[in-house]
Amino acid sequence: MYAAHDVRYEERPEPTILEPTDAVIRTVASCVCGSDLWRYRGISPMSEPAAMGHEYVGVVEEVGEAVTTLTPGQFVVGGFLHSDNTCPVCVKGMHASCQHGGGFDGCQAERIRIPNADGTLLATPAQPDEDLIPSLLALSDVMCTGWHAAVCAGVTPGATVVVVGDGAVGLSGVLAAAQLGAAKVIAMSRHADRQQLAREFGATDIVAERGAEGIARIKEMTDGIGADCVLECVGTEDARLQAVGCVRPGGQIGLVGVPHGELPMDQLFWANVGVKGGPAPVRAYLPHLLDMVWNRVIDPGKVFDLTLPLSEVVEAYRAMDERRAIKVMLRP
Amino acid sequence: MYAAHDVRYEERPEPTILEPTDAVIRTVASCVCGSDLWRYRGISPMSEPAAMGHEYVGVVEEVGEAVTTLTPGQFVVGGFLHSDNTCPVCVKGMHASCQHGGGFDGCQAERIRIPNADGTLLATPAQPDEDLIPSLLALSDVMCTGWHAAVCAGVTPGATVVVVGDGAVGLSGVLAAAQLGAAKVIAMSRHADRQQLAREFGATDIVAERGAEGIARIKEMTDGIGADCVLECVGTEDARLQAVGCVRPGGQIGLVGVPHGELPMDQLFWANVGVKGGPAPVRAYLPHLLDMVWNRVIDPGKVFDLTLPLSEVVEAYRAMDERRAIKVMLRP
Repeated sequence: MYAAHDVRYEERPEPTILEPTDAVIRTVASCVCGSDLWRYRGISPMSEPAAMGHEYVGVVEEVGEAVTTLTPGQFVVGGFLHSDNTCPVCVKGMHASCQHGGGFDGCQAERIRIPNADGTLLATPAQPDEDLIPSLLALSDVMCTGWHAAVCAGVTPGATVVVVGDGAVGLSGVLAAAQLGAAKVIAMSRHADRQQLAREFGATDIVAERGAEGIARIKEMTDGIGADCVLECVGTEDARLQAVGCVRPGGQIGLVGVPHGELPMDQLFWANVGVKGGPAPVRAYLPHLLDMVWNRVIDPGKVFDLTLPLSEVVEAYRAMDERRAIKVMLRP
Repeated sequence: MYAAHDVRYEERPEPTILEPTDAVIRTVASCVCGSDLWRYRGISPMSEPAAMGHEYVGVVEEVGEAVTTLTPGQFVVGGFLHSDNTCPVCVKGMHASCQHGGGFDGCQAERIRIPNADGTLLATPAQPDEDLIPSLLALSDVMCTGWHAAVCAGVTPGATVVVVGDGAVGLSGVLAAAQLGAAKVIAMSRHADRQQLAREFGATDIVAERGAEGIARIKEMTDGIGADCVLECVGTEDARLQAVGCVRPGGQIGLVGVPHGELPMDQLFWANVGVKGGPAPVRAYLPHLLDMVWNRVIDPGKVFDLTLPLSEVVEAYRAMDERRAIKVMLRP
């Protein structure tokens, strides 16, 4: 991406092993992230061109000499940040803040270098069936991020849950809340196709209204007080205030939308509302969620409603920007 | 209190039953709250004179006709806010936001009217021994507030905990964290007498340094990453930033200091640090904590290091303002 609305498909240097803990993988699938759109739309300024993409599944081609858990030929899933899985922060399960972790240099590509390969990648039990590829790819970010939203919002069996945002992360949050045993999962969505997918993922109710009207509808459905747990999966100020309006006193908001707006913290204090969230510690959730995908308990890959060859990445950005697609899978 | 530094001991109208759910109690003990000092020091402006005090234990003198759980002569403890204990918010355990709750009109007095008596007051199993009075009084606010800080900070067995603030609430937070099974409880305190009490309450370590130096000391004691749980028991911006600096990625800050300053929410997002807190739902904690006090498992009344007759309330404010006392008990 060179600037807002200027994405180019072009040749880049071949990735190689730079550190003994690296792996190079051949990408089987990648995708465009909702968070990529902040720069695409010019909301987050860019100081220089960026190699895009942080979601991937692929086959190991080569590993550095210190890599012990992976061998060439294995099919692997990894998160949108790399992590060593051994530092004191990773031991606490907070891999997104790994002391030796970081981001990737462009995963919307045919090959990528994965630093900290042992601490980042997880191999599937065998080569996956083709129809599992989308759901495995979803684990690289959106499904783990939706799960993180539900965990941060404190979803427990019997909880009433509101999900703000009907993008791929919000829909994954619906799936997560349902899997975590929520009694009521209310998806806020105005789009028929997304409402449909939310229901497939376990939403018990849909609220199409927004703002004060949306809050009033939620209150009606929650004994007049608001939901126990709210998943904020957008990041805009409007979405954050929607979440604040929908939560009950003493409730909890899980934040995973990249923050673009303030939270009324004093108001939340007087109502004893908790907030927690941030970038998902994918590796912490990956063993459990990979197991659920592999055993076909969940099918988060349904969020991909358009698949394009990698060479049509420019159209992928356009389709997501114009909301013609929830999420676009790219196949090299 | 007529204005900053202007507290007067004077006659007020005798409280009477106004609603059938009221009780009038004869105060056995009351006290001055750290939060009263915000106005005393002129930090929180006052638009008009206020009858002060929201902490009390006493003996029921009279009950309204709708009161079913209390009878005259019983010794009772109640929280700093009244609550009906039956509305949908109370059912969720968040009595501080009771739909029919509110505050009191001056508990630093010989008699007080308690609205929502059934939902606010809890009778002790019998008339208490005199030496239990301070600990029972502590349940009216500081002990439940310290407990709330520990609960909101997510203290669980084995956790490393930092407590910011060595006032009565902070010290109660130390006691709460220890009772909840924390493996390490680090009290940040510069005063020898408060350090001593913190140790009696279960602090395993004391850090006297503040600011960057204090944060560095905490990091040394927590594997270089910060504490799992931080209890913020002051409310000033300095104290809040101290808490932010002492928590590890993915950790949790429990807030109970009345907020007087911002929190760096974007920074907390990127580190996945949660914040939760507010006014304590005293009635939710009261049965458990009253049981612990009654059975002499905990002795939170030790925070009262000065007792004065109610008529010397002016001196009580001075002693706390000048930090000559941690917390002053008033006896009518």
